[in-house]
Amino acid sequence: MKRFHVEVRVKPRPGLLDPEGKAIHHALDSLGYEGVAGVRVGKAIDLELEASGRNEAEARAREMCRKLLANPVTEDFELTVAEAPSEDAGSPSS
Amino acid sequence: MKRFHVEVRVKPRPGLLDPEGKAIHHALDSLGYEGVAGVRVGKAIDLELEASGRNEAEARAREMCRKLLANPVTEDFELTVAEAPSEDAGSPSS
Repeated sequence: MKRFHVEVRVKPRPGLLDPEGKAIHHALDSLGYEGVAGVRVGKAIDLELEASGRNEAEARAREMCRKLLANPVTEDFELTVAEAPSEDAGSPSS
Repeated sequence: MKRFHVEVRVKPRPGLLDPEGKAIHHALDSLGYEGVAGVRVGKAIDLELEASGRNEAEARAREMCRKLLANPVTEDFELTVAEAPSEDAGSPSS
């Protein structure tokens, strides 16, 4: 089993209200930042998964998104999978 | 001026409590997902910025993160900048 690092982004679907994004946009305007054309806020979820390969890690992460992490009616998600550096190198089993 | 799409990820600093991540980790366990070694939850913020170039867009986004989007004591942030496709192609000014 290898360790994979999955970065998930869950975002409100286009067209749906995003009150937190609107609040941040307003705050940026108040702070004097010009040229901000849009702000959308969602969740960034980092998963550390044990899996036999990248495809399995991605398939499981997608299933977790569909079943728990994202609301299929109001949210979209995207994810990236990367093999985690083997941090266990410092703890040999011998 | 060009349009840039900036993806910001704001995450709780390593070692700090992340109750939402813990709750999701517990829920994944309850749903029968094994091999989940860690879950961290933060914010995914998408900014649409007008800027003269990529460097300016990134510098302004970093400043926004430092001043508003991330709590410098408890959160880290990372961001990626991409030039947005010119969606105005469909609305000629003629």
